[in-house]
Amino acid sequence: MENPMKKSLLAAGLAVTLVSGSALAQMKPEVMVKQRQAAMTLQGKYFGPMAGMAQGRIPYDAKIVQRNAGFLDNLSRMPWDGFADSTKDVKSAALPTIWSESAKFAEAADRMQSEASKLYAVSRSGDEAAVKAQIGAVGKACGGCHESFRQKQ
Amino acid sequence: MENPMKKSLLAAGLAVTLVSGSALAQMKPEVMVKQRQAAMTLQGKYFGPMAGMAQGRIPYDAKIVQRNAGFLDNLSRMPWDGFADSTKDVKSAALPTIWSESAKFAEAADRMQSEASKLYAVSRSGDEAAVKAQIGAVGKACGGCHESFRQKQ
Repeated sequence: MENPMKKSLLAAGLAVTLVSGSALAQMKPEVMVKQRQAAMTLQGKYFGPMAGMAQGRIPYDAKIVQRNAGFLDNLSRMPWDGFADSTKDVKSAALPTIWSESAKFAEAADRMQSEASKLYAVSRSGDEAAVKAQIGAVGKACGGCHESFRQKQ
Repeated sequence: MENPMKKSLLAAGLAVTLVSGSALAQMKPEVMVKQRQAAMTLQGKYFGPMAGMAQGRIPYDAKIVQRNAGFLDNLSRMPWDGFADSTKDVKSAALPTIWSESAKFAEAADRMQSEASKLYAVSRSGDEAAVKAQIGAVGKACGGCHESFRQKQ
């Protein structure tokens, strides 16, 4: 049976294509959960201040935005191979919909990466209004995925 | 009084220079520890397979190395602002030497970033022997810092 998540991740040229099957099989599910949570934690670290700037709570600083957007562009590609089937039963905030609606989840993951990548590009342009709008788009990608695939916090 | 760690981090053009003082002051120490640990976890995720390849335990794959080295180059810049003075008393594997020998710690942190950056550059050259040697240099930078500044695991 075709795995739509795998297909979509392959289409996006993602991490999972670069990890050999045997390496994934050897990986403990608990370690994979810890690693994907680490990627979420760091996305929060670097997105948080940008969200604050877009909302006017923190003074806008183009240098911080460029640095954070570059980090986020990288980090946005790191969580997804951690949602392997083998991790289904590990306690976490991940909802079963990740695996039961895997195509939709993969689409949400792709969107996050795409918006983060756009933000990095826009952050280098120096156009503050465009940067703030794109920070909003990234926030929407985070929130959209959390809404459907993460337990309410 | 001059803070040698801050000076060195500034010299290296690091993260800490880009976080406003007020933002750092507002950050809970427990959150900072969680974020720096997340960066260590992900450095392990992406360095591990490269170490395996350098040691011949995993077949060499230039594409994985390039991707992982790019991620590691970014990740190697993420932990350090998490070692703020305010985190001294939070339970973790961090040794008090981080703060009592802060110049030496900053030097070890700089070395890690420098070696990771070199690895990313070398990984794009395609010279397998040079890449493997540089993976070794990165491993030495990780280990050297852990030896002096992390509780024995």
